[in-house]
Amino acid sequence: MERTFACDVNKSTESNLMVRGWIHKIHDLGQITFIHLRDKTGIVQLVIDKELRENLRLEMSIEACGERVINEKAPKGVEIQVKELKVLGKAHYDKLPFEINSYKQKASLEKQLDFRSLSLRAPKVRAIFKVQEEIAEAFKNYLKSLRFSEIHTPKIISSSTEGGSEMFTVSYFDRRAFLSQSPQFYKQMMVGAGFERVFEIGHAYRAELHNTWRHLNEYVSLDVEMGFIKDEFDIMDVEEGFINYLYAHLRETCKDELALYNITLPEVVKIPRMPLSEAQELLLEKFNKKSPVGNIDAEGEIILSKYVKETYDSDFIFLTKYPVSKRPMYTMPDENLPGMTRSFDLIFKGLEITTGGQRIHDYEMLKSNIEKFGLNPDDFSFYLDSFRYGMPPHGGFAIGLERLTMKILGLENIREATLLPRDMKRLEP
Amino acid sequence: MERTFACDVNKSTESNLMVRGWIHKIHDLGQITFIHLRDKTGIVQLVIDKELRENLRLEMSIEACGERVINEKAPKGVEIQVKELKVLGKAHYDKLPFEINSYKQKASLEKQLDFRSLSLRAPKVRAIFKVQEEIAEAFKNYLKSLRFSEIHTPKIISSSTEGGSEMFTVSYFDRRAFLSQSPQFYKQMMVGAGFERVFEIGHAYRAELHNTWRHLNEYVSLDVEMGFIKDEFDIMDVEEGFINYLYAHLRETCKDELALYNITLPEVVKIPRMPLSEAQELLLEKFNKKSPVGNIDAEGEIILSKYVKETYDSDFIFLTKYPVSKRPMYTMPDENLPGMTRSFDLIFKGLEITTGGQRIHDYEMLKSNIEKFGLNPDDFSFYLDSFRYGMPPHGGFAIGLERLTMKILGLENIREATLLPRDMKRLEP
Repeated sequence: MERTFACDVNKSTESNLMVRGWIHKIHDLGQITFIHLRDKTGIVQLVIDKELRENLRLEMSIEACGERVINEKAPKGVEIQVKELKVLGKAHYDKLPFEINSYKQKASLEKQLDFRSLSLRAPKVRAIFKVQEEIAEAFKNYLKSLRFSEIHTPKIISSSTEGGSEMFTVSYFDRRAFLSQSPQFYKQMMVGAGFERVFEIGHAYRAELHNTWRHLNEYVSLDVEMGFIKDEFDIMDVEEGFINYLYAHLRETCKDELALYNITLPEVVKIPRMPLSEAQELLLEKFNKKSPVGNIDAEGEIILSKYVKETYDSDFIFLTKYPVSKRPMYTMPDENLPGMTRSFDLIFKGLEITTGGQRIHDYEMLKSNIEKFGLNPDDFSFYLDSFRYGMPPHGGFAIGLERLTMKILGLENIREATLLPRDMKRLEP
Repeated sequence: MERTFACDVNKSTESNLMVRGWIHKIHDLGQITFIHLRDKTGIVQLVIDKELRENLRLEMSIEACGERVINEKAPKGVEIQVKELKVLGKAHYDKLPFEINSYKQKASLEKQLDFRSLSLRAPKVRAIFKVQEEIAEAFKNYLKSLRFSEIHTPKIISSSTEGGSEMFTVSYFDRRAFLSQSPQFYKQMMVGAGFERVFEIGHAYRAELHNTWRHLNEYVSLDVEMGFIKDEFDIMDVEEGFINYLYAHLRETCKDELALYNITLPEVVKIPRMPLSEAQELLLEKFNKKSPVGNIDAEGEIILSKYVKETYDSDFIFLTKYPVSKRPMYTMPDENLPGMTRSFDLIFKGLEITTGGQRIHDYEMLKSNIEKFGLNPDDFSFYLDSFRYGMPPHGGFAIGLERLTMKILGLENIREATLLPRDMKRLEP
């Protein structure tokens, strides 16, 4: 007999079915027992006789065959009256570390992460990764519809992308190498190599000494780079288009998951755009909140987002025109605003989820900018040389997949949006 | 005016068009000049007057506006008579390192890799990565149609996956960590965590001291793991199904690219399955070729593939039933063939592109197998513990994306199928 998935039991026209999954709940009622069987797609109710009940324990995996019967009281109105039952995966525990069939998870996040293959079984936890998968899917589909190509670039690199610190070092045969903080150089190079429009879904590494609710040392970066643009606003248009596409996609593919988190996504997202200096002034004047030079801090992001939500009914805001001193050496200066760049951040519900902008595309200008930043162009020759052959105007952005997931679902800690997080203290599981 | 891509010029109904791209060829004919303009999607012919010709050089990027005119002699029968022309990306070179508009690339592979943003512009090189992108797309689409979920697992890990050597070490804050050779443990754990069926498209790292045509130290692994299987043949069926899906997908999406390489993909792929011992005997008896214990070597793979092609008209062969001593500790022993396992390799045109099989799913059996292999179960506790909670029977396989690309297109060196290869000597670009 072919296996039927839980989500298909209701609409099946077979009278006898075979299902497989894990024992989610056991409810003994004397002669018979109700079992909620959980598989990848949902939960189905089994009814079993006493003799089959023996030896069954929560979270075992089983295969059950039986008759499909209408029962209004069962979840989704159907149950299976089991005739044959086989244990596929045994239980080898004294006591489960925590309940996974209760609506509210009582175990601490640390404990959930320690027992990740168990905590992920809880439908509400599993839902996070369904949403995350669909975010990446929407990102890919949207960009492909605009003729972007997917690329895979190296994560082991010979030198720092931006002359910065906070890199993990790798012993690479007899040399020292680094783990890439971003595919920045490579995505630009691929634009110039004739791909024109590229995206990458790949790991990025930050050796930051932060153990906070919003930092991971290894995360998935959704990277975009686009050639033949007019200016940085073309890039913001692409990102705004993505957010709209994403929300429509999630409404369609993650209805149940969004409902579990009480999330309603707006039909249309129109993202206000505000120069950084204006945001700083606004914070100071309206909220007496001072900002650091050339940026706003985490508290400022939260206050500003609240203001933007109340004033423009938007969960997002683009901050534009960051100063040269606060952006990497490849950032395009704004010829109309001395000291400023054609760059932006995207703040989503109080958290920065994107940095982006137009890049310098002229070889001489880039070379002289590298020098202005006190760096040696020779250290960047493999990158710089690719600007010798007609590099077109271009720009791009990157979104942290886990941050976007966290903020869409209103999670409190970015580790919740990571299958197997890596932070300063955690390398396992 | 909106930009028109080269591939759309022919079918456009506008009389005036704007195009953008790189100058692929310049052909001066006295008063007028023909230019082949290359963009992401193809090549379009421009006709320009003498005064616009000045300062134009190969591989500059430009924007051109003009009238769309039918000309039977132009590629695809249409050309643009240019009225306005703007240089977008200047040339900063004395001489191009190599020609990129000749059909046959004369530069050595090393030189092409040194100037990667230039060599990738050659249409025949670019075609490799169009095919590669569609391979990954087909992999994803096929598996999603079978209800597999895409996952992202950590590449920084605390210990070796299989107790083996050949790992790159990473300085992880005050600890030593490693770059993952394979998501093996994690994909199994995610099956057990309720995902049931997972795939990952991600980097894998091998610190192998090999600098050959078929080895990379960083590559993209197409990983699959599937729960609730009967045995390893379920896994081979999934892989065979993928190959058939892939070929149909490539025939549809990469017609021009396959033609550039003179590749015709068969309509149906039925992969013969042969126990390893039988293949070894066959090699010895028919070709006087001895094999190492429990495997066949690279030469044997080539001879066998030739034989299989002639005998079964198949470019592929599954070798099955490898001995316990040659497979990792998590491999399921075959209870009907003492000393053998439920594992397989897939050989494609003389090269191993896959290792796969059924895994041990019972906690006690896995623990005792780890011990049998002379390893300490405590070193694998984060992995082993996830087998305590009803791990179902499961198995999987992995395909090297670059190897598959190389073999489909008949390339000679795996570096050709890698945007930016990493090997013992190469960390740049």
